[in-house]
Amino acid sequence: MFVSDNVSCVCPEVMRAIDAANIGDAVAYGDDEASNDLDRAFSGYFETPVTPLPAGCTAANALALAFAPPRFASIYRHQAADIETTECGACEAWPGGSKLVLLGGEQYRIDADTLWSALARAPRGRPQSAAPAVLSLTLVTEAGTVYSLDQLTSIWRVAHNNGLLVHMDGARFSNALVAFGCTPTGMSWRGGIDILCYGATKNGGMRADGVVIFNRDLSTQQLGSLRQRNGQLYSKRRYLSAQLHALIHDVVAEKNARQTNETAARLAAGLSQIKGARLLFSVEINEIFVFLPESAAANFTGPGYAATLRNDRNGPHYRFVTARNSTATAVDIFVTAASGKAQIGGAA
Amino acid sequence: MFVSDNVSCVCPEVMRAIDAANIGDAVAYGDDEASNDLDRAFSGYFETPVTPLPAGCTAANALALAFAPPRFASIYRHQAADIETTECGACEAWPGGSKLVLLGGEQYRIDADTLWSALARAPRGRPQSAAPAVLSLTLVTEAGTVYSLDQLTSIWRVAHNNGLLVHMDGARFSNALVAFGCTPTGMSWRGGIDILCYGATKNGGMRADGVVIFNRDLSTQQLGSLRQRNGQLYSKRRYLSAQLHALIHDVVAEKNARQTNETAARLAAGLSQIKGARLLFSVEINEIFVFLPESAAANFTGPGYAATLRNDRNGPHYRFVTARNSTATAVDIFVTAASGKAQIGGAA
Amino acid sequence: MFVSDNVSCVCPEVMRAIDAANIGDAVAYGDDEASNDLDRAFSGYFETPVTPLPAGCTAANALALAFAPPRFASIYRHQAADIETTECGACEAWPGGSKLVLLGGEQYRIDADTLWSALARAPRGRPQSAAPAVLSLTLVTEAGTVYSLDQLTSIWRVAHNNGLLVHMDGARFSNALVAFGCTPTGMSWRGGIDILCYGATKNGGMRADGVVIFNRDLSTQQLGSLRQRNGQLYSKRRYLSAQLHALIHDVVAEKNARQTNETAARLAAGLSQIKGARLLFSVEINEIFVFLPESAAANFTGPGYAATLRNDRNGPHYRFVTARNSTATAVDIFVTAASGKAQIGGAA
Amino acid sequence: MFVSDNVSCVCPEVMRAIDAANIGDAVAYGDDEASNDLDRAFSGYFETPVTPLPAGCTAANALALAFAPPRFASIYRHQAADIETTECGACEAWPGGSKLVLLGGEQYRIDADTLWSALARAPRGRPQSAAPAVLSLTLVTEAGTVYSLDQLTSIWRVAHNNGLLVHMDGARFSNALVAFGCTPTGMSWRGGIDILCYGATKNGGMRADGVVIFNRDLSTQQLGSLRQRNGQLYSKRRYLSAQLHALIHDVVAEKNARQTNETAARLAAGLSQIKGARLLFSVEINEIFVFLPESAAANFTGPGYAATLRNDRNGPHYRFVTARNSTATAVDIFVTAASGKAQIGGAA
Repeated sequence: MFVSDNVSCVCPEVMRAIDAANIGDAVAYGDDEASNDLDRAFSGYFETPVTPLPAGCTAANALALAFAPPRFASIYRHQAADIETTECGACEAWPGGSKLVLLGGEQYRIDADTLWSALARAPRGRPQSAAPAVLSLTLVTEAGTVYSLDQLTSIWRVAHNNGLLVHMDGARFSNALVAFGCTPTGMSWRGGIDILCYGATKNGGMRADGVVIFNRDLSTQQLGSLRQRNGQLYSKRRYLSAQLHALIHDVVAEKNARQTNETAARLAAGLSQIKGARLLFSVEINEIFVFLPESAAANFTGPGYAATLRNDRNGPHYRFVTARNSTATAVDIFVTAASGKAQIGGAA
Repeated sequence: MFVSDNVSCVCPEVMRAIDAANIGDAVAYGDDEASNDLDRAFSGYFETPVTPLPAGCTAANALALAFAPPRFASIYRHQAADIETTECGACEAWPGGSKLVLLGGEQYRIDADTLWSALARAPRGRPQSAAPAVLSLTLVTEAGTVYSLDQLTSIWRVAHNNGLLVHMDGARFSNALVAFGCTPTGMSWRGGIDILCYGATKNGGMRADGVVIFNRDLSTQQLGSLRQRNGQLYSKRRYLSAQLHALIHDVVAEKNARQTNETAARLAAGLSQIKGARLLFSVEINEIFVFLPESAAANFTGPGYAATLRNDRNGPHYRFVTARNSTATAVDIFVTAASGKAQIGGAA
Repeated sequence: MFVSDNVSCVCPEVMRAIDAANIGDAVAYGDDEASNDLDRAFSGYFETPVTPLPAGCTAANALALAFAPPRFASIYRHQAADIETTECGACEAWPGGSKLVLLGGEQYRIDADTLWSALARAPRGRPQSAAPAVLSLTLVTEAGTVYSLDQLTSIWRVAHNNGLLVHMDGARFSNALVAFGCTPTGMSWRGGIDILCYGATKNGGMRADGVVIFNRDLSTQQLGSLRQRNGQLYSKRRYLSAQLHALIHDVVAEKNARQTNETAARLAAGLSQIKGARLLFSVEINEIFVFLPESAAANFTGPGYAATLRNDRNGPHYRFVTARNSTATAVDIFVTAASGKAQIGGAA
Repeated sequence: MFVSDNVSCVCPEVMRAIDAANIGDAVAYGDDEASNDLDRAFSGYFETPVTPLPAGCTAANALALAFAPPRFASIYRHQAADIETTECGACEAWPGGSKLVLLGGEQYRIDADTLWSALARAPRGRPQSAAPAVLSLTLVTEAGTVYSLDQLTSIWRVAHNNGLLVHMDGARFSNALVAFGCTPTGMSWRGGIDILCYGATKNGGMRADGVVIFNRDLSTQQLGSLRQRNGQLYSKRRYLSAQLHALIHDVVAEKNARQTNETAARLAAGLSQIKGARLLFSVEINEIFVFLPESAAANFTGPGYAATLRNDRNGPHYRFVTARNSTATAVDIFVTAASGKAQIGGAA
């Protein structure tokens, strides 16, 4: 139930868009009507001409990082990416030999000073070392915390002053957007982002993240081959384009994100009331990392999948994630049960 | 209109299955109900326990070939794969260093003797050479021709006697199935196939090909990492499983394939009647390669996309492909127009 | 004895140069005195400023091909590279995803027309296909035949007119040079070569081939990283530089090559006299491919390694290779024995 | 002068061995007499049957790590490997997709507890994560510190109890050996090492490190292809074998290492006497990391290369490295000069 935003079903607007795209023939591999519409819509949404490329999750990030830097370059990241690593080496492999450089930072955020001093001592011009080339930010970090616009701006300045491209893993882009009341433009290229992985799958899509390239100095010449080589060129692309389009149209993405964030806040508040509970990180979007006493945990260890028990350097704790189909009612029922007032779990 | 089976829309049965899967939460990355159902259904369809892995087109083949052999192995293929190559090196790269060995053969089919003599002179046990490891067959070849069961059997024997695994690119598996009145079992593991890429996308799916591993001696230990690393681990997998399930259920795949093949036969017969037309290969499934005089070609060069003009070692010619949504009526209208009796093209 | 030019020992001039370099300290990884001297010497030898990069055999070719083209490009080669392949996929892997396109051609030489028609039908601008980018020539082919200057010129024109870079595998560069009485310049950049792998190991060196980049439009920015990543950055580089320098100095390479070629010609003449012997290819440099009757072959099948018995699409035959330390006397003794007049083999 | 042990020339014993190997013909790519002799000698030296594979520096480590684990595995390392990284991604790339996991630890040594807790929280059995597979130790760390036998033993136990292979980067193996008065056996397989990169280049060789596989459960089947694919199969291998053999014969390696260590101790003692000097790490072998006041540093900043100025998270400091051709006299002259009593630098 609160195990991941990946477990949620597709939102009605996206399903309707898929249905609407399902008529007759359409050019394969892009250049179909739905994809051309998508280009126009994204260009409007981000107030600059862009051509989003559909690709899923890990693939979107790997593709962006493979495309952006020269081969044999260093990609700077927060070390949480190491701990919780879920990419199985894709971001090193797809570029044909990148090197990840891991940075520390509180609340799983890279701060500008840490980046600055790492770059200051980075070896340059030596064949033995991969030169710094990209800063890769996870907008909503592995701790569920978010970069504020101010933080983005200061880190972006360090990156650009050092000649780095800035890549943003925006798997939960819309969640951050509504949390800050920010515009898509401000959160992306005006905020110094060169390449964005716009996340739609977790926010109501079926399989629909999109790589958006804002920096026009980047040559896109190899991009087609890179996509095909890595299995990210979709024959029936119209169905992916339709999903992305449906989400950015008519604030559907924002609406979904708001529901997600609100239920997370409600859930966090409820769990905090449980005696002995302790939040590990501030709850800024839709992820809650919480230590719970055994008595509470015992209440939701049935056959369902209400939350994920984890054990890392923060000790044993639970991760809850709400999604666009989470409801206040479900949250309340869950909290009541977890507090020991009623049994849940089997019905998760 | 007849440009590719990739341009066709998704069949109603698949759309209904996607809709039906779109309820509530489901475990991410597999192990959801729809995926477990799929395992059972495929195991029934192929009369042996299997666990199909969803992956699209190029990705399915690359994944199968990355999984099967040891690293640094040779993969034997027909050289048409070279001419018409559409994989951009994925099948060399995903395995981490395979070598493609290209074979000749009439009608774009590898024959058993050619394979035998290639293997006889293949270097073995030398570090400088990649040892023979896999035979990769494209069931419906790039010329639209098909391997008969007899041909499969004789080539399979050569492969297995030489210690090769047999991989089948079955992008048009169902089309071959109905053309020969064969069973799924006979066309796959009983026919000596170790790994099948079962094609569903071209036959009415949205994005739904599946890697099916029949040979139980193959260790699947690395498969999860391989999928993740290559962007083929799907978070909302239920939607892909539902597609594959819908197609093998209640002979939907066969029905779609039959419609496809029959309209191709009708189209081939019609085009053959055009004065000066000449078929380049026998039309066995749903692809037609035909030389057409300029007068006929002029009739469908409007803004639509009725067929593909090609120019390879067979000289300039047209490729027509029918799909599961092609109709006898559309074929007849097209042939009439191409014969000069009425204008088409703009309406393609 | 005649099994390969790789079995021969290092020539005295090279050994003396290694000894001379073995004094005190020298900068590691290049920029040492011997390496700077080498740059000047090679620049003089090739009459243009160049910076040769030491790398061995397969590594030299793989490095050159990794460096030259964009990723995901096609490299055009003669298909003999396929038959006799000894690179185990390095030339696909090091560039991070190149595609080899194999061409036919008599006497194992690519001819200009074959290349022209292959390029004419090569798909361009399609993401599914790797665009043509490099022509890779093996100056002395796998059949021991050589490209004449005229042949080089005509093939080079086709390549350059089609935007291809031209790479030359010059493992036996000096042998061709003396065979044609050509200049290093004429055989390389004036002959249209963009990147040369200058072979020294087979011609008297210890481990000393060199990648020479003539085309100044090629960015060498990634080259250092590429070398390190692939284990081709040598800490004590002075010893490799000294070898290459010793060979191009004072016509040592040419002297060695002449001795090699002359003993091959003598051996070929001698073997041809044996009743039933038949040369498979013209003997142009130092490799002899010859069918020999069993009675002759029986004369050198002792524990030594006089020649290599092979069995490929040319049927069973022997390959003889002379080297810079082969002598007329040794040839005569061998031929006499092979003719049945005296026993050899055990003493090979 | 004290810039690296890579700048030193080759020791006389190795040069004589190369000369001695330079007679007549020898089988190429191994199986020559010198290589077979080497196998016997190494087997004696390590008191167990082994077959050392020559490979240089980065290449040796990359080859060992490519060979040992399954693809997509995690390799555990000290994070200093990240800071000072000199491999440009080779150890990720050669295995075809490994993931480096970086560990902390004082004096640049991994300790057993750190490893234990990292492994305890390592994700296993998830496709999204690369499973732990190898512990890679740098025997002489990037801080010049060494693992004691006790430390090796305790860390080895943790690794093996968790199913990890243990790889040792032994670029300065002999230096550690003589420092501890340990046997080759005790420092390698009896100490729990599965694969050793035995370093000879820095200790008097020309290009001669060797991969030594002790664990017989490791299949060596792919090793030949792996070597060829990565440019580590040497045509004239006898010259590399001769180098390795000369070093382990008659305690040459130990003699060289002792001279190296002793001059380092002398240099460290001398530099410590300089007012304001401060050693950053204990000097255990032949590397000295020292903060020096500007007045002292000014004494050796001439055109020579006496030491390396560095600036990392330890602040600005100098790195001195002695080599087997360093002398007590040279050390004394240098220290005197650095202390301001005489000028050096130009004569470095």
